[in-house]
Amino acid sequence: MFLNKGFVLASRPEGAPRPENFRLVTSEVAEPAGGEVIVRHHYLSLDPYMRGRMNAAKSYAEPQKLDAIMIGGTVGEVVASQNPAFAVGDMVVGMGGWQLYARSTGQGLRKITRPHIPVQAFLGLLGMPGITAWYGINAILAPKPGEVVTVSAATGAVGSVAGQLAKMAGARVIGIAGGEAKCRFAVEVLGYDLCIDHRAPDFEARLAAALPDGVDCVFENVGGKPLALCLERLRDFSRIAICGLVASGYDGATPTPLRDLKIILDRRARIEGFVITDHRALWPQAIDELADYFEDGRLGWTETVEEGLEAAPEAFIGMLQGKNFGKQLVKLI
Amino acid sequence: MFLNKGFVLASRPEGAPRPENFRLVTSEVAEPAGGEVIVRHHYLSLDPYMRGRMNAAKSYAEPQKLDAIMIGGTVGEVVASQNPAFAVGDMVVGMGGWQLYARSTGQGLRKITRPHIPVQAFLGLLGMPGITAWYGINAILAPKPGEVVTVSAATGAVGSVAGQLAKMAGARVIGIAGGEAKCRFAVEVLGYDLCIDHRAPDFEARLAAALPDGVDCVFENVGGKPLALCLERLRDFSRIAICGLVASGYDGATPTPLRDLKIILDRRARIEGFVITDHRALWPQAIDELADYFEDGRLGWTETVEEGLEAAPEAFIGMLQGKNFGKQLVKLI
Repeated sequence: MFLNKGFVLASRPEGAPRPENFRLVTSEVAEPAGGEVIVRHHYLSLDPYMRGRMNAAKSYAEPQKLDAIMIGGTVGEVVASQNPAFAVGDMVVGMGGWQLYARSTGQGLRKITRPHIPVQAFLGLLGMPGITAWYGINAILAPKPGEVVTVSAATGAVGSVAGQLAKMAGARVIGIAGGEAKCRFAVEVLGYDLCIDHRAPDFEARLAAALPDGVDCVFENVGGKPLALCLERLRDFSRIAICGLVASGYDGATPTPLRDLKIILDRRARIEGFVITDHRALWPQAIDELADYFEDGRLGWTETVEEGLEAAPEAFIGMLQGKNFGKQLVKLI
Repeated sequence: MFLNKGFVLASRPEGAPRPENFRLVTSEVAEPAGGEVIVRHHYLSLDPYMRGRMNAAKSYAEPQKLDAIMIGGTVGEVVASQNPAFAVGDMVVGMGGWQLYARSTGQGLRKITRPHIPVQAFLGLLGMPGITAWYGINAILAPKPGEVVTVSAATGAVGSVAGQLAKMAGARVIGIAGGEAKCRFAVEVLGYDLCIDHRAPDFEARLAAALPDGVDCVFENVGGKPLALCLERLRDFSRIAICGLVASGYDGATPTPLRDLKIILDRRARIEGFVITDHRALWPQAIDELADYFEDGRLGWTETVEEGLEAAPEAFIGMLQGKNFGKQLVKLI
């Protein structure tokens, strides 16, 4: 019926993934059975968490299986349906993976209810990254007006939303990003008060200067040295939300240690790790709020789009190196 | 009017405190001025936090001043009053310090309202240690029935209450204490399911065996190796409440590092430091609940009492070495 193409995990990377860790496969998509739908993907989302799944070890989730289609968020159109809940033509968000078509029982598929918003937003601002930012800022950090918030990967899919939400809460928001171009973008477009290039030779001194009285809230999705520096500058009653540690383990890279837990006691701090799929009950509320902010013009997004499924491995590898600006997408149609 | 005796901090210790770090001083207690009261102390509380205050560096509180009376919780009787809120004969709890008498404006003095409970309980079960346990268990850890809770210094003033409260919540409670005698006491008297001697050569293996499926809640007031081991065994959605780190810094001892913050993300864990004096608004509720549990017979305490002010330095040094059983007190009258 349809000719499907997709990428499977061919081998587990050691350190940074390489193109040969992925293998392109083709197959025919049969007609949907009773209860099933076939979705033709318009966009595939590429996200740092995928790197963690490529390891054999369990982290917060099961590892990606070898020779199976790579996990990934997708947005697409129902092109065949034997499920009364979905009609041909419905636009849906799901975890369809790195492939052109997906077969689904409908479980985990969400229909897009705001037709005026570009569909790819449901993979970014209104998808896992945006909801992750929303949860970290609102449910864990809850910055108060005037508090100081740091956001790592400040222009990334998650960080760019977290930074904007923290500004909306009235906080002073310091971004951390790789490269001067991203830092300019963070300040000029996203509204950060300041953004510091972690590749700059004087990064440590600049971060210290940006936090003369320390930091109240740390929104962390990278880890490594910048996180370690923020943890040395915690203020009393500070909060640290960790939703990703790209620099610490996904890649088999150096861990991010905490030198002494005593700082947690001395500062009466709270460190909390979270994974947004644990909080699905809150997704509808988060999506509604974020969509309202977007339609009000209070919240924007930025994206890097590669064309065609075949571009996915290189785009993914580049994203892990920080080459993308905002949400990394692959356009499949 | 009265002859007062007290201990001042003579010098700051390096490592473990020694008797010469304290100096006995005497003075006359003048009549109270307008608004003042004079309290004759019945009991002085000795607590691990005092060691931290003896350092010059600020932790969560200002350091103890040299040549000033050592800080300390006290319970005593009003023996002279020019303050309409207090009558001669009232029993009061306060921070009177290591001395026989204290002069006070009344600020920070709390009248004892349960005359049937022995007064020293207001320095232990119904004082800072008990309230610390109550807050850590109820406000931070909130153990659910069947969850696994570890409590360090399991028979100490704080830990003994934390362990009992965790049992009341229906958790499986594993104590950690120094020495087989304390461990027996923890199980036989306090009701721990198990207690492990951290001085035993096979401590690490025994702790691992006691936590085959990991730990949900860590009530920590010691730090060091046992904490590090618990942190390696966290379960999903685990909580760690840190209210003291005797083994990590009070004594200038080795820090308690966290090897990799990634465990916080992988386990979606929450680590929180707290100091009970930040939460004074909750003290009346805590004291009421704890007193009810005591009067119901659901909660007991144990204490080690030394006689006479002059015994305070040695008792304090011994407590830091773990020589006490339960709440360490000095009886002053």
